[in-house]
Amino acid sequence: MNPDAEIRAVVLLSGGLDSATVLAEAAARGRSCYAMSVNYGQRHAAELQAARTIAERHGAKEHRVVSVDFNQFGGSALTDDAIAVPDSPSAGIPTTYVPARNTIMLALALGWAEILSAQEIHIGVNAIDYSGYPDCRPEFIQAFQHLAGLATRAVDGGEAVRICTPLLALSKAEIISRGVHYGVDFATTVSCYQADPKGLACGRCDACRLRREGFEQAQIGDPTRYQAPALQPD
Amino acid sequence: MNPDAEIRAVVLLSGGLDSATVLAEAAARGRSCYAMSVNYGQRHAAELQAARTIAERHGAKEHRVVSVDFNQFGGSALTDDAIAVPDSPSAGIPTTYVPARNTIMLALALGWAEILSAQEIHIGVNAIDYSGYPDCRPEFIQAFQHLAGLATRAVDGGEAVRICTPLLALSKAEIISRGVHYGVDFATTVSCYQADPKGLACGRCDACRLRREGFEQAQIGDPTRYQAPALQPD
Repeated sequence: MNPDAEIRAVVLLSGGLDSATVLAEAAARGRSCYAMSVNYGQRHAAELQAARTIAERHGAKEHRVVSVDFNQFGGSALTDDAIAVPDSPSAGIPTTYVPARNTIMLALALGWAEILSAQEIHIGVNAIDYSGYPDCRPEFIQAFQHLAGLATRAVDGGEAVRICTPLLALSKAEIISRGVHYGVDFATTVSCYQADPKGLACGRCDACRLRREGFEQAQIGDPTRYQAPALQPD
Repeated sequence: MNPDAEIRAVVLLSGGLDSATVLAEAAARGRSCYAMSVNYGQRHAAELQAARTIAERHGAKEHRVVSVDFNQFGGSALTDDAIAVPDSPSAGIPTTYVPARNTIMLALALGWAEILSAQEIHIGVNAIDYSGYPDCRPEFIQAFQHLAGLATRAVDGGEAVRICTPLLALSKAEIISRGVHYGVDFATTVSCYQADPKGLACGRCDACRLRREGFEQAQIGDPTRYQAPALQPD
């Protein structure tokens, strides 16, 4: 293979801290990045605006938003108004788990990757902080890699797309440090499960707590924009 | 397990001949059927109306249409106006192949199945007539079954959803005979890749040809409604 040949990567970009870091690293490593955001009816549409800003900052060749009206099924605190977003960690699989979310997002990324002849799909799954989510675990990713090798034209000759999970085994603090290294502007990322329309964070939900602790442990100032000054970290 | 316990099945229902047969059989075998149609921007929206009619006829508990704006990516004669639907069989993977289509549809079905606590997902893939499509082959289905066991809450205890492919090894004539046995009204099904808004078939595309030959081989009168009388089979 020509070492100068373009490597195309579809990068799943939610607008959160993790996927922003994934995009920044992929771009810095010379990938031609095609950012895909999936709007599956999540409450925090501010994430999509954040994704646009991040895709532009890191020079994505394209940024596409795919809408899936999956929220008609409910079943998760992130898509169903009848289920409250929890304020504290829970045992087992959290109510913020969205059924089959990563399977759906990877399937959509696989379709675009095939059309683009992209060699890689990058996804910011993390098995440390999100061990409660089945579809963030290494076994799930391995199974999807196997499926990807059988699901597309590549099965009749050609190389299967590689599923790249650079954050899989990192702590939140390590992800933040890596993001800083690759120039992520974390003030533009939205992690909160119930951000307001402007993207301001609640400061109370699981995602906010994890993020805040990550900045503390990384010893990096938390640039998160919170809804109320009282919720700013000390 | 109580033998009288309800078995819930998510049935992928396109409005075509194959998936109508799958639904009719599942219902006849006592499944509580939850029909799912995926509108991924295909040209033949008449299929969705056909799916509604079929779901009602066979007593589906619910019929949901999930919209995914995947046609923005093009890449298939079925979703991209710039690619012509072929009139004759082609070597290799046909241009009517939609990248990752079955992966995306099974992923969506998996999500709904998890929310419903459904035990089964039924899909009318067929490896005989559609051997050119990677995602209609047995290896693909096996890989998805493995993925499904790791992708949902079931991984922490509980039974993985079963991916059921009752038509996998049948010829089109065998599928038609089975459909007749289970009471499918094939006049309401739409197979044509370029049906008009009323669901009338072109009579020329690969799907029309396969369907017509199927009725001939099954020695069953073809009830298909064609766009022009000249295109009716002899």
